[in-house]
Amino acid sequence: MLAAALRDGTAHRRTTFEIFARRLPDGRRYGVVAGTARFVDALAQFTFDDEALSLLSDFCDRETLAYLADYRFSGDVDGYGEGELYFPGSPVLSVHGTFGECVVLETLALSIFNHDSAIASAAARMVSAAEGRALIEMGSRRTHEQAAVAAARAAYLAGFTASSNLEAQRVHGVPAVGTSAHAFTLLYTAPEGRPNEKAAFKAQVEALGADTTLLVDTYDITAGVANAVEVAGPELGAVRIDSGDLGVLARQVRDQLDRLGAHRTRIVVSGDLDEFGIAALRAEPVDIFGVGTSLVTGSGAPTAGMVYKLVEVDGMPVEKRSSHKESHGGRKQATRLAKTTGTVVEEVVHRYGEPPAGQRGLAERPLTEPLVRGGEPVGDLSLETARERVRAGLKSLPWHGLALSRGEPAIPTRMVARAT
Amino acid sequence: MLAAALRDGTAHRRTTFEIFARRLPDGRRYGVVAGTARFVDALAQFTFDDEALSLLSDFCDRETLAYLADYRFSGDVDGYGEGELYFPGSPVLSVHGTFGECVVLETLALSIFNHDSAIASAAARMVSAAEGRALIEMGSRRTHEQAAVAAARAAYLAGFTASSNLEAQRVHGVPAVGTSAHAFTLLYTAPEGRPNEKAAFKAQVEALGADTTLLVDTYDITAGVANAVEVAGPELGAVRIDSGDLGVLARQVRDQLDRLGAHRTRIVVSGDLDEFGIAALRAEPVDIFGVGTSLVTGSGAPTAGMVYKLVEVDGMPVEKRSSHKESHGGRKQATRLAKTTGTVVEEVVHRYGEPPAGQRGLAERPLTEPLVRGGEPVGDLSLETARERVRAGLKSLPWHGLALSRGEPAIPTRMVARAT
Repeated sequence: MLAAALRDGTAHRRTTFEIFARRLPDGRRYGVVAGTARFVDALAQFTFDDEALSLLSDFCDRETLAYLADYRFSGDVDGYGEGELYFPGSPVLSVHGTFGECVVLETLALSIFNHDSAIASAAARMVSAAEGRALIEMGSRRTHEQAAVAAARAAYLAGFTASSNLEAQRVHGVPAVGTSAHAFTLLYTAPEGRPNEKAAFKAQVEALGADTTLLVDTYDITAGVANAVEVAGPELGAVRIDSGDLGVLARQVRDQLDRLGAHRTRIVVSGDLDEFGIAALRAEPVDIFGVGTSLVTGSGAPTAGMVYKLVEVDGMPVEKRSSHKESHGGRKQATRLAKTTGTVVEEVVHRYGEPPAGQRGLAERPLTEPLVRGGEPVGDLSLETARERVRAGLKSLPWHGLALSRGEPAIPTRMVARAT
Repeated sequence: MLAAALRDGTAHRRTTFEIFARRLPDGRRYGVVAGTARFVDALAQFTFDDEALSLLSDFCDRETLAYLADYRFSGDVDGYGEGELYFPGSPVLSVHGTFGECVVLETLALSIFNHDSAIASAAARMVSAAEGRALIEMGSRRTHEQAAVAAARAAYLAGFTASSNLEAQRVHGVPAVGTSAHAFTLLYTAPEGRPNEKAAFKAQVEALGADTTLLVDTYDITAGVANAVEVAGPELGAVRIDSGDLGVLARQVRDQLDRLGAHRTRIVVSGDLDEFGIAALRAEPVDIFGVGTSLVTGSGAPTAGMVYKLVEVDGMPVEKRSSHKESHGGRKQATRLAKTTGTVVEEVVHRYGEPPAGQRGLAERPLTEPLVRGGEPVGDLSLETARERVRAGLKSLPWHGLALSRGEPAIPTRMVARAT
C-alpha cells in the first residue's frame, strides 16, 4: 500500500484514521479503554533501523525504503483518556497525518488497544464484582511472556491491587506481590518420602517473617492451617487456598483461624476465578482474590475487536460501502451526557469541531483529548490518572450497566449526522 | 520461595519439574506442542542483569541476589519434539536441575508453551479443515504486539502457508505475504468525494505488477471484480473478499472472473473465519483462506492450560494430595502406540527408564527426546522439522480425532503405575 501510494504521491494526502469497536464482546455492557500510554510510547520508538530495512528490501522498492529510513510519526493523535469507558462506535483514538505515516501504524495501534482494552475490560468487571476487596493479578504463566507484562498493567489500571509480574513493576510501576507455590511445600518432602509441610512453612517464615502468605492446600487444608499458625503464630499475614469449593473452605478456614486466635490473618483464594466466581464469593470471608487465566484471556473476550479505519482524506469523509461493515466517515469527537447525579445516559459522537446542541438538565463531558501534537506526547498519560478514570467511570454507570449478565451496552451511542 | 530455600540449603536439592495439561480445552480432540524451540532459546538468555537485580533488591536478601547474579540454567531438559500432538497428561516437557534453577523458570516456560500451543492447536484444526488449501495468518492486530510474532510462528508450525507479520519473518523465518486494506482504496477518493476504486487498483498494479491481490469489496463487489480485471488484465493474481456471505460471493466472483477470462485469478477470502467457517467453505471455489482473530485467540481456547509441577525431589516422587488437582509424581517419559497402518491408538506415560512391555501388533514410538544437556541445546529444533511433525501427527490420528465437533481426546492416555 505504501509503495503504491508513494509512487503516485497519494501517500502524502492528509488523512484521519480512527480506532473504534463496532460492538462490545459477549454481551458486555461497557469496555475500558487501555493501551493509550503504551501506544504513545511505542509511537516514539516506531522507526526502521538498518536491519529492518534490509529485510524490507525484499518487499519494497527504493523509494519506499528511503521513506521508511526517515520515518518518524510527526502527526497528531486525539483520543479518549486512558481508563475511560467506551461503547460501540466510540472514537477511542484518532490519528491524523499523511496516509503514509498513518497507515503503517495500524498493526501496532490495534495490537496494543485490542489486547490491553480486552484485559482491562474484563478486569473492571472483576473489580466491580469484588466490591472493594483486593484483587491480585497472577496470570502471567497463562499468556505470552510479553503480553503478560501488558496484562498486569491493564489489570492494575482497571483497579487490581497488585500483580505477581515483577517485570510489570519494573516497566510500568505496578505493585508486585507474590505467594508461594505447591512446589515449595513439596520440595521439603523428607528423605523417606514423608510430606513435611511444617518445614516448608518454617523456611518461608524465617525468610520473609510472619506477615507472609502461606499456601495451605498442598496436602490437607485443616492440617495446613494448623501447621501455618503453629509455625508463624497468630500474627501470620495470610493463608492461601487454591483448590476445592472456595466458599465452603473459606468459611471453615476463617473459623479455624479465629479459634486459633489468628483473627487478623487474611484469607487469599485463587483457582480458576473469574468475575462470576468472585461475585459468588462475596458473602464469604475472603479478603483477597488471586486471578489468573480468566484475567489474561479477557474472561471469554481475549481481544477487544477494535478496528483502525480511514475516515477522512484531505478533509473529505470516506467510508466503506459494502455489506454489513459500515463505518461512519469524517473526523469525529465524542461527548458523554450525564444526569446531575452523575449517572451517564448517552454517548454522543459528532463531527470534529461541531458539538451538538446541549440537552436541558444534562451535563456534557467532552471525551476526546489531545494525546500527541506534531509527533510529541501531550497531556497526562499516567497510570494513576487512568486508574482514577476507571473508578469514576464505573461509579457513573446506571445500575444495570454493572450487571455481570449478558446485556446491551449500558448507555446508547448516538451518531450525530454530518452537517455537510 | 527461592530466598527461603537458599537460606536452608534445600534450593540445591535435585528436582524434576514437568509441564503437562490436565485436559484439552473445549472438547478438543488433540493439542499441538509448540514453543519448544522458543523456550530453549529463551533459556540461554534467562539471566539477571544489574537493572533487574536492583529492582529485586526490594524483594530479596543478599544471598538470593548473589545467586541470581550468577544464574544460568545448567540442567537438562527433555520433552516432546516441537509439533508433536499431545493429550491430557502427556509430559510435554521435563526440566531437571536444582530446585533453585528450575523453580525460577516456571513463568517463562508456561507462558511460552501455553501461548504457542494454544495457537498451534487451533491452527492445526484450521489446516485440517482447509484440506490442502492455503491459509494465511493475518491476526497480528488482534493480539498483543509481541504475542503476534509468536502466533505467526505457531500458525506456520501447524501448517499455515504464510503470515502477514514481517517481524515473524525476520525472527523466525515465517514466509511473509500481504494484501491491501480498504483504507488503500478509500485513499484514492477523488477530490469531489467520488469513489475511485480503479485509481487505487491501478496504483497497486503499477507498484506490484498484475500478480498481486486486489481487495474488491470496498464498494460493490461485482463492480470491484470488473474494475480489477480491467486494470490488471486476466493475469491478475488474486482478488480478496473480506465481507458478506463468503460462499455465495466466492461462487459469483469465480463465475465473473471466468467470464472475464481470468481463469487463473485466485480467490482469497477473509473475515471472521475459524475452523468451522473454513470447513463450511470447502465446497466453494476458494483458493486461499485469510485467518485473523480466531487464530491468534486460539479459536475459543486462548491458553493451553498447561501447568509446571514439581514431580521429583532427590529421586523421590512427590505429588499434591488435596482435592481435584492430582498430579502423578516421578520423572516420566511417554511412548505412543500405533497400528501397523500408522493410526495411533494409545499414549503411554511411564516412569523414566522403565518402558512398559510392548503390545503385540502395535508399533511403539518414544516421544520424549533430549532438548538441553548441561544448559546447552541439543537435537533438532528447526521449524521445518516441527512442521513435518504436525503433518505426520495429523495423518496418524484415527478419523474421529480430526472431527471439529466437541469430543473426547482422539486417543486415551494410560499412566503406568510406578514400579516402586
